[in-house]
Amino acid sequence: MKSWVRYEQGSEIGFGLMDGDDIAVYTGNMFDNPTAAGKTVKRADVKLLTPCVPTKMILLWNNFNALAARLGVPTPTEPLYLLKPGTAFIADGEAVKKPKSYDGKVVYEGELAIVIGKRCKEVSEDQAKDYIFGYTCSNDVTAGEIIQKDPTFAQWTRAKGFDTFGSFGPGIVTDVDPSKLVIKTILNGDERQNYPISDMVFSPQKLVSMISHDMTLEPGDIISCGTSVGVGSMRPGSTVEVIIDGIGHLVNRYEE
Amino acid sequence: MKSWVRYEQGSEIGFGLMDGDDIAVYTGNMFDNPTAAGKTVKRADVKLLTPCVPTKMILLWNNFNALAARLGVPTPTEPLYLLKPGTAFIADGEAVKKPKSYDGKVVYEGELAIVIGKRCKEVSEDQAKDYIFGYTCSNDVTAGEIIQKDPTFAQWTRAKGFDTFGSFGPGIVTDVDPSKLVIKTILNGDERQNYPISDMVFSPQKLVSMISHDMTLEPGDIISCGTSVGVGSMRPGSTVEVIIDGIGHLVNRYEE
Repeated sequence: MKSWVRYEQGSEIGFGLMDGDDIAVYTGNMFDNPTAAGKTVKRADVKLLTPCVPTKMILLWNNFNALAARLGVPTPTEPLYLLKPGTAFIADGEAVKKPKSYDGKVVYEGELAIVIGKRCKEVSEDQAKDYIFGYTCSNDVTAGEIIQKDPTFAQWTRAKGFDTFGSFGPGIVTDVDPSKLVIKTILNGDERQNYPISDMVFSPQKLVSMISHDMTLEPGDIISCGTSVGVGSMRPGSTVEVIIDGIGHLVNRYEE
Repeated sequence: MKSWVRYEQGSEIGFGLMDGDDIAVYTGNMFDNPTAAGKTVKRADVKLLTPCVPTKMILLWNNFNALAARLGVPTPTEPLYLLKPGTAFIADGEAVKKPKSYDGKVVYEGELAIVIGKRCKEVSEDQAKDYIFGYTCSNDVTAGEIIQKDPTFAQWTRAKGFDTFGSFGPGIVTDVDPSKLVIKTILNGDERQNYPISDMVFSPQKLVSMISHDMTLEPGDIISCGTSVGVGSMRPGSTVEVIIDGIGHLVNRYEE
C-alpha cells in the first residue's frame, strides 16, 4: 500500500509516496502531476506532517445508520456538517492536547476522510469520483460536554475546534475503493470502534456532490465522513489509533 | 481616515494604505512593519480584494443585548460562534450570489469585524489589544431557512458558508476605538440597521481573549462580532451597504 505523505527533514518540507519504511520523493504539486525526484528518504529519518494542508476541513455529524439508531435520531436527508479550523490540524505521531480551559470529557472519533484533488463546484454524484484525490484516516477529537452546554446554540465548532483536535493521516491512498473497508479505533490497545464504511448514510461520492453545491471544494480540502458507534473518552496519557486496512494507521497520544 | 487594503492591478497583487481616492503602496508584511514604497495608485485604477486573507473567520451569534431581548433568549455566558470557509470570502464591490440549490430567504447581517495582527493563544483581556491589528466592516450573509431545517442539528455552518456569503472590507482601520461607533446597514438606500457597538455582550477584547483560549488566532484571522436588530432579507438585484463611520463603507450587490 502506497500513500502520499508530507514530511519535514531539518528545515526542508517535502512530499512523496510512502511504501513501508521508504518515501519516494516527489516535486511539484501533489495534486497535479507531481514528478518523481529519483531519490528516497527513510520514514524514520523525517517527521511526518499532515499529508496535505486543507483550506477547510468539513466534518459530518450523523452519517452512519448504526449510530443514528443508537442515538435514536432519524438518518438525515442532507449532510449535516461543521468546519474545523486549520489550527486544529495535527499529523500522525503528534499529540492531542487537553485544553487548559476545559476539564470535561474529550472523546476520540475514528473516521474515514476524503481528500479533494481538484477544485469542484456543483458536481454530480457521477462526476464526484474525478474530484476525489484519495482517502486518509481522521480522528475528529471532540470536547463532548461543550456541545449542549448552552441551551440556545449547539457549540459544535467550539467543541471540535480546539488546537490539536483535528488529527489526520498518515498518508493519502489514491487507488482504493473504501466501500468495503472497516474502520477500527484502538484506545490503549483495546478495540473500541469497528464499523463498516458500507453503513454510511451518504457515500463519499454523494458527500462531495452535495457539499459542492453549497461551497466550492479546493485541492487538499478534507471531508471527514462522520463516525459510528463506540465513541469514548480519553484520559491524558492515552494512545488512540485509527486503523483502516488499505488506507492507513493513524496514531496520536492524548496529553495534559 | 486611512485603511489598509489589498488590491489587484493587472496580474499584480499589492497592498497599501488607502486615504480617499489614493492608495499609498507598501511592501513586506501588512502585519509586521510594512515598508512604504514611495508611490501611490488610484483606487479607481485597481480592483479591491479582501483586505487580508484569513486562515479562519469566526462569527458570533447572539452578541448584542438588543437582539437577545428581541429573540427572547438570554445573553450568553461565553461567546457562541461558528466558522465560515475561505471560499465564502468576497471583497467590497463583489457580488453575493444566490445559491442555485436554495430558494429560501437570504439575509444580510451588518457587523463589526476584528482583524488579528499577531499569533495569539490564551491571552488575557488586557493583553488582547496588543493582538488586534484593526477593524473592518462585515456582512455575514445567511441562508436563514437552513439553520433550523433539520430538527436534530442546527445548520449554522451550511447556512452561512455558501460561496460569496462572507463579505468584509473595504479596508482595515488600525487607529480606532470602535466602542463609541454605530453600525448601519442600508438596503437599496433604506436604513435597516442602526445599532451601537456599545451594546455588545462581549467586547472585542473579551472575544479575542476568550476565543484565544479555545483556538490559536493567526495574523489576518477575523472575528465578526455578531449583528443586532434589523436583519432582513435581500432580493436578487438588491444592494447592501454596511457603514461604520470611522471604519469603512462596504458595498455588495446580491445577484441571481
